Amino acid sequence: MPRYCRFTVFGKHRWGLVVDGGIQPVDDSPFDGGVPRPSGEVIPLEAVRLDVPTTATKIVCVGRNYADHAKELGNEVPTEPLIFLKPPSALLPHEGVIRYPVGQSTLVHHEGELAVVIGRTTKNVSEAAALDHVFGYAILNDVTARDLQRKDVQFTRGKGFDTFCPVGPWVDTDFRPVDQRLTVTVNGELRQDGHFAQLIFPIPMLIAWISRVMTLERGDIIATGTPAGVGPLVVGDRVEVTIEGLGTLTNTVDA
Amino acid sequence: MPRYCRFTVFGKHRWGLVVDGGIQPVDDSPFDGGVPRPSGEVIPLEAVRLDVPTTATKIVCVGRNYADHAKELGNEVPTEPLIFLKPPSALLPHEGVIRYPVGQSTLVHHEGELAVVIGRTTKNVSEAAALDHVFGYAILNDVTARDLQRKDVQFTRGKGFDTFCPVGPWVDTDFRPVDQRLTVTVNGELRQDGHFAQLIFPIPMLIAWISRVMTLERGDIIATGTPAGVGPLVVGDRVEVTIEGLGTLTNTVDA
Repeated sequence: MPRYCRFTVFGKHRWGLVVDGGIQPVDDSPFDGGVPRPSGEVIPLEAVRLDVPTTATKIVCVGRNYADHAKELGNEVPTEPLIFLKPPSALLPHEGVIRYPVGQSTLVHHEGELAVVIGRTTKNVSEAAALDHVFGYAILNDVTARDLQRKDVQFTRGKGFDTFCPVGPWVDTDFRPVDQRLTVTVNGELRQDGHFAQLIFPIPMLIAWISRVMTLERGDIIATGTPAGVGPLVVGDRVEVTIEGLGTLTNTVDA
Repeated sequence: MPRYCRFTVFGKHRWGLVVDGGIQPVDDSPFDGGVPRPSGEVIPLEAVRLDVPTTATKIVCVGRNYADHAKELGNEVPTEPLIFLKPPSALLPHEGVIRYPVGQSTLVHHEGELAVVIGRTTKNVSEAAALDHVFGYAILNDVTARDLQRKDVQFTRGKGFDTFCPVGPWVDTDFRPVDQRLTVTVNGELRQDGHFAQLIFPIPMLIAWISRVMTLERGDIIATGTPAGVGPLVVGDRVEVTIEGLGTLTNTVDA
């Protein structure tokens, strides 16, 4: 289970492998084709600040991809994927602080999701070949100012604030989404609970469909949608998105 | 009137200054604070392939920012800016070919716009200081699959196809938008005709407002909206967006 992370040490971004007891720095980006060589050194996980574990040129999100979530917001189940973009400026690492846009929104929601990280340039790929273009999987929280999303109709502002796209803690290149469970807790209380078998449009279809519209670049992220149970975050909250076999993405909320 | 362009020579992207008779290569990116030194050499404009004249991490577009355009599509004039994103994968240089997404759309429209190119990291800037964060101005065509835009409600797919964001030919760092005329012609026939005094939300307000939501990075683009007269493009068309004092962005349409 190679799990790649990025971390900052002496002001420099580096890639590492998550191993027992910490992080082994590697000598190169895992995106450049080769297999980066790990150093012998192991840095304790607590000693580093993790960064977002990918360098995305875009974040393509899929709306209403779980029937029970579409229903809870009063939307029809879509007949083809509904896509929208979050800006890279919204990215936030594991343990980063979600900044509540005080004065602009009074209703910020969590939306826990499975994120696909693309491994190489992908255009017009078939569903059959789509998974060959995946580098790995991560956990994502599609934080949403629900009031602004409703007001604007376009999702861009409500979902585009700085810190509104936590992704992490790492990218797992061996993870295979089948029917693992995704849960979201806020201050330890269960809020969202879903299984990947509930995805309306499965991941190979999403990759193929999106790649007919736009070229996906290595490092790009596809957020695959959120199950039912979305709800408000307030200042002081601790939100955790857990995917069985992948890990837990933790963030706190502050003003 | 320094006009910076990017061009490809021997497979490498380089920056240049547009001068009488052609392009003077410069020794560095104009974004890095200093003033790049031009070489003595002048390359004829016809001898190079121009690239998109900026390296954007995001393209923030403003919808319905001319009252007559909002009206022609049956929309209300907005009370605050309506923003959406185009992906960087949609960027296309001057003289590049807009690829008609045959089999996906049957109604592709031109939307000529003034593009603001951001010069440095911009967050929570005041309207008074906003223009200090502008590197320069360029011309942009917000190409739109109108049928998919209407179907999805979200603009992302309809406006996100590869080649749907021509920008160029250069970035003019001396241009000052006042009330210059913007026109769009298709095969020489006038389609769109507007003046910048018609902008509902002026440029300093847009920069300040967007920067309250998301951090703008140097090279990022704000597309300021399109005047009335949007209409279809078909395979074989030649579309030209002209801004008085700035130049002409030319693209053709192919399957």
